[in-house]
Amino acid sequence: MSVVVTGTTRCEAGPRDELGTIGVATIHEAQGRTGLLAHRLRPIYSGAHVSGTAVTVSVPPGDNWMIHVAVEQCQDGDLLVVAPTSPCHDGYVGELLATALRARGVRGLVIDAGCRDVRELTGMAFPVWSRCVCAQGTVKETLGSVNVPIVCAGAAVEPGDVVVADDDGVVVVKRDAAGEVLAAAKAREVKEAAARERYRAGELSLDVNDMRERLARKGLRYV
Amino acid sequence: MSVVVTGTTRCEAGPRDELGTIGVATIHEAQGRTGLLAHRLRPIYSGAHVSGTAVTVSVPPGDNWMIHVAVEQCQDGDLLVVAPTSPCHDGYVGELLATALRARGVRGLVIDAGCRDVRELTGMAFPVWSRCVCAQGTVKETLGSVNVPIVCAGAAVEPGDVVVADDDGVVVVKRDAAGEVLAAAKAREVKEAAARERYRAGELSLDVNDMRERLARKGLRYV
Amino acid sequence: MSVVVTGTTRCEAGPRDELGTIGVATIHEAQGRTGLLAHRLRPIYSGAHVSGTAVTVSVPPGDNWMIHVAVEQCQDGDLLVVAPTSPCHDGYVGELLATALRARGVRGLVIDAGCRDVRELTGMAFPVWSRCVCAQGTVKETLGSVNVPIVCAGAAVEPGDVVVADDDGVVVVKRDAAGEVLAAAKAREVKEAAARERYRAGELSLDVNDMRERLARKGLRYV
Amino acid sequence: MSVVVTGTTRCEAGPRDELGTIGVATIHEAQGRTGLLAHRLRPIYSGAHVSGTAVTVSVPPGDNWMIHVAVEQCQDGDLLVVAPTSPCHDGYVGELLATALRARGVRGLVIDAGCRDVRELTGMAFPVWSRCVCAQGTVKETLGSVNVPIVCAGAAVEPGDVVVADDDGVVVVKRDAAGEVLAAAKAREVKEAAARERYRAGELSLDVNDMRERLARKGLRYV
Amino acid sequence: MSVVVTGTTRCEAGPRDELGTIGVATIHEAQGRTGLLAHRLRPIYSGAHVSGTAVTVSVPPGDNWMIHVAVEQCQDGDLLVVAPTSPCHDGYVGELLATALRARGVRGLVIDAGCRDVRELTGMAFPVWSRCVCAQGTVKETLGSVNVPIVCAGAAVEPGDVVVADDDGVVVVKRDAAGEVLAAAKAREVKEAAARERYRAGELSLDVNDMRERLARKGLRYV
Amino acid sequence: MSVVVTGTTRCEAGPRDELGTIGVATIHEAQGRTGLLAHRLRPIYSGAHVSGTAVTVSVPPGDNWMIHVAVEQCQDGDLLVVAPTSPCHDGYVGELLATALRARGVRGLVIDAGCRDVRELTGMAFPVWSRCVCAQGTVKETLGSVNVPIVCAGAAVEPGDVVVADDDGVVVVKRDAAGEVLAAAKAREVKEAAARERYRAGELSLDVNDMRERLARKGLRYV
Repeated sequence: MSVVVTGTTRCEAGPRDELGTIGVATIHEAQGRTGLLAHRLRPIYSGAHVSGTAVTVSVPPGDNWMIHVAVEQCQDGDLLVVAPTSPCHDGYVGELLATALRARGVRGLVIDAGCRDVRELTGMAFPVWSRCVCAQGTVKETLGSVNVPIVCAGAAVEPGDVVVADDDGVVVVKRDAAGEVLAAAKAREVKEAAARERYRAGELSLDVNDMRERLARKGLRYV
Repeated sequence: MSVVVTGTTRCEAGPRDELGTIGVATIHEAQGRTGLLAHRLRPIYSGAHVSGTAVTVSVPPGDNWMIHVAVEQCQDGDLLVVAPTSPCHDGYVGELLATALRARGVRGLVIDAGCRDVRELTGMAFPVWSRCVCAQGTVKETLGSVNVPIVCAGAAVEPGDVVVADDDGVVVVKRDAAGEVLAAAKAREVKEAAARERYRAGELSLDVNDMRERLARKGLRYV
Repeated sequence: MSVVVTGTTRCEAGPRDELGTIGVATIHEAQGRTGLLAHRLRPIYSGAHVSGTAVTVSVPPGDNWMIHVAVEQCQDGDLLVVAPTSPCHDGYVGELLATALRARGVRGLVIDAGCRDVRELTGMAFPVWSRCVCAQGTVKETLGSVNVPIVCAGAAVEPGDVVVADDDGVVVVKRDAAGEVLAAAKAREVKEAAARERYRAGELSLDVNDMRERLARKGLRYV
Repeated sequence: MSVVVTGTTRCEAGPRDELGTIGVATIHEAQGRTGLLAHRLRPIYSGAHVSGTAVTVSVPPGDNWMIHVAVEQCQDGDLLVVAPTSPCHDGYVGELLATALRARGVRGLVIDAGCRDVRELTGMAFPVWSRCVCAQGTVKETLGSVNVPIVCAGAAVEPGDVVVADDDGVVVVKRDAAGEVLAAAKAREVKEAAARERYRAGELSLDVNDMRERLARKGLRYV
Repeated sequence: MSVVVTGTTRCEAGPRDELGTIGVATIHEAQGRTGLLAHRLRPIYSGAHVSGTAVTVSVPPGDNWMIHVAVEQCQDGDLLVVAPTSPCHDGYVGELLATALRARGVRGLVIDAGCRDVRELTGMAFPVWSRCVCAQGTVKETLGSVNVPIVCAGAAVEPGDVVVADDDGVVVVKRDAAGEVLAAAKAREVKEAAARERYRAGELSLDVNDMRERLARKGLRYV
Repeated sequence: MSVVVTGTTRCEAGPRDELGTIGVATIHEAQGRTGLLAHRLRPIYSGAHVSGTAVTVSVPPGDNWMIHVAVEQCQDGDLLVVAPTSPCHDGYVGELLATALRARGVRGLVIDAGCRDVRELTGMAFPVWSRCVCAQGTVKETLGSVNVPIVCAGAAVEPGDVVVADDDGVVVVKRDAAGEVLAAAKAREVKEAAARERYRAGELSLDVNDMRERLARKGLRYV
């Protein structure tokens, strides 16, 4: 059952990279409030904002062997997305694997488990979104799979999908929807910029968005 | 059952603002180790220290409509305090709502749920104490209430109470007790300053606080 | 049952201090992936890296009296290691106790409970690894023990053992094994430096570590 | 700050006892989906269903002294409601205290902490809703308060309020609202009985409750 | 984005029903240790063992409207599988909805949230696997979707897949793999029966499975 | 580092078996409120009460190979105590291993991880105290150790210690202290029986234990 799928079709570089300029919350809204990975994934340092094409890895608990296998499948513009087959907090990835990933052009790591060497990872500006920081080491004994569909932190991710991550979390955009989501996200940014100006000037969202009548109809009372 | 209570009586500005110069731990001790909100509420960035009069909001899970309603009830010197009616981690508040709140003079947000746009919130120095950071969006479909008594993160908060928050957490001071608590907190600060000097000089708290006899009476043995 | 054990034999200063120059993850690996405290212990600020000889404290929930007792047992080069007898998140230690500990030469605190005054602790560069930040105060009513064997965050710690802590977490090294572990950790650092160079140059760990044949024997298929 | 309030006014026996014949979920709905204690409180055995007037106890972590004090304040028809001042899982109450409570006519225990001797408690049919089962013992060293307003498992409870508990959890009804809530709950039971019959006969709630048009207006599409 | 997909192709009744005679753990092993839903889903009573074709429902937090919509899509032999769009513990389903589901021939409910009326559900022998028991009610205000692919408790489930649940948890079998998995599971049962007899007779799995040499090669030492 | 220690000295059968007639809470109190394993370990069915000499197993996450190894080290009167090297919820043990353990005379299993086949285990009356029920299977790839000192669920356990478990949880008694703890526990049972009678007759623990004066001295006020 353990396979490495080669020749994955990836999302094109254009929408992939442009999605990386837009916030995770905005993208998530733009695709109908879907695609968010669970908020337990947090960045190891503030300020990182990346997008990449997903190379997916399914790993056993406490065993990072398949991440070593996955490195070879990575190429420039990818983001590694790792999910254990049962919940695990071990530190699957540290500075050495990050060095190997970076040498392949990988932009960062999303892992529903732990990572370690966080000072070194921060120093090399290799961004990681993980469930926790944990020095617990792993072994290389049991197989898993690379570039198969996985569920990572509650979201279904397929190889070649676009994954975007920033200080708010991580979102996945289906490979074939990237262009459409990008357009919707940009439209949302424009709309939000307009609202921001009005709020800053003291207007109320109750008025900007015409909420008063609907609130009254629902039964809201002021006492 | 959904109401917006207008005309809330707020704690006076004097004690409210002076309480904001004192640490949360000290205030909590000064009022007999009461009033602390659960430690799961954490600041989104370090170094913020604010006090404000509570505008309370009771919201359904996954629905931030009433926060839009609450903005109108806010005035200079307030702090928004939001509790969901059942546990929820969604990102109820982002940069847009923070902009609207700031335009009303609101000093910050305490929410027993998630917030998002944390980079932008940090950039505008709008402090938030939340259960988590989560990009998950909310809807505007279901009513709640504004300026009613709520339980937020395990503490009872009434509209007009003083809420103080810093890197250690969040504490609520009953509106009518603000002056008394302020005095007690200041007294405690003086006492702690004296102890600090003695500890720094190498004295032991066993001696400074005359603990040895009581320890022996309780049965402590040195072996 | 409450005792203070005096005259604890501590690990020698040489290996103790040298271990403080090596990362927690490396030490943990060097002693066969043992000795790690649970990852729920996190530093209150980034960048601290210390080693010290353990002064252990067993405290009741919500009561920090024995920490006051423990201060007297501390000496230069120690690290205070505190475990509650049942899970507790209260803020057992703040700036005052840290001042007292520093006056004794204590290098930091490891506590499977909460701490408070984190801004002040950060300001005085007194490092703490704790389960959480929590302003909840404690009392001084119930005895515990000092310098007895404890289990702290899932790891057995004996007085005089070496404890090392950095951004990745906390590890304990048995007093009598410090020299041996130090040597193994140094050897590991050398080996990792070599691997790092090869990875940076684009070599794959699959090749550097001769994994391909073993993977194939296990049944890994490329499709 | 530690007080025992005597002479608490309790809800009358009539509505108190009649509320005990109605399910917790129904009561919670009947009072506008409020008053529920957090679902982490679970019964130690199935099938218990009780109501009682609340005798409230605020206890320190790991210390059950005030429960001994509270026994004296209890009378026939009461339910003991206990909240620790910080989260704690210790076993505050076992068979001995339950025996003492029963001798006072207390109908059960609601505690946001642990209990123990669950086999014996089950044998004597003394129902307990607790956060967990935990054999960890407590001490009698630190004061708390009896019959003061508390927050228990996220709900505000005042002495004399009615508390109802069954296999679904625990709900509090404000003392002065008991009659009104009782009437609303009964009306709800009647309405639910009618719906039940229609559903059993194969009718759809979409039709029984006329939902189709509103769903369509909201934009639901069938594909 | 809210849709109800009609005309879902379901797994055939033969393998669906026969899978319901085999334990969840065995099926999970038989398909290569995949398909298990998170263990946080627990049965509300012991002894239930069912299989059914999945009708999937994606619901907002705190809103069960789409479950009412889903009832109409159910047919004999189905199992309702419900996932909230963000984590929620509310009691989405009680006795009334269970009555409606049963009238459609639905065999049970799998929900990554709460359920209520557990005494009544147990009484009617309607099995539920849920994240918790929680009396907290829900509203009917916000749309979701029916019979779309969902992630429920960490596992990807598509409409028409077979879901099997027993006291050990819940597993999903892809619609097209049901026959193959069934055969593998039966083969495993035969193999386990043989091992059971040998173990009962006192043979060691070390010998039954020829593990000794492999253990020695790995380096296991007896001291 | 992976070893199987043979020839473990076990506690004598007399005190071991007699301890099995006393409740876990009582034993825990009798040895000074120590030795309790974390309350997250729960029995898979009610009513079991066993004691046994500990055979300890340290296992990697997701790998039960060493449990197969441990079976051979077990003898009549033992209890298997298993701790993973990092937190794991997988189902390490099911009916097959339980059959093998029972054939060796093992009285039950204590595991800080998951177990499965709970219906079958209940049917064969093989008691298990585990962190959870979880059907997730494990592999046999990585070594661990048998009969070495471990920390299980927060308590230090050495091979040959007595472990007692009932509906309240699990406690460990040091091998050499078993006789002394047994005597203390029996004395406690006698004392509790006397108190029980007085409580049942309506006496208050305030009087039975002379607490009133001490409460007043501490400052308790009745208002």
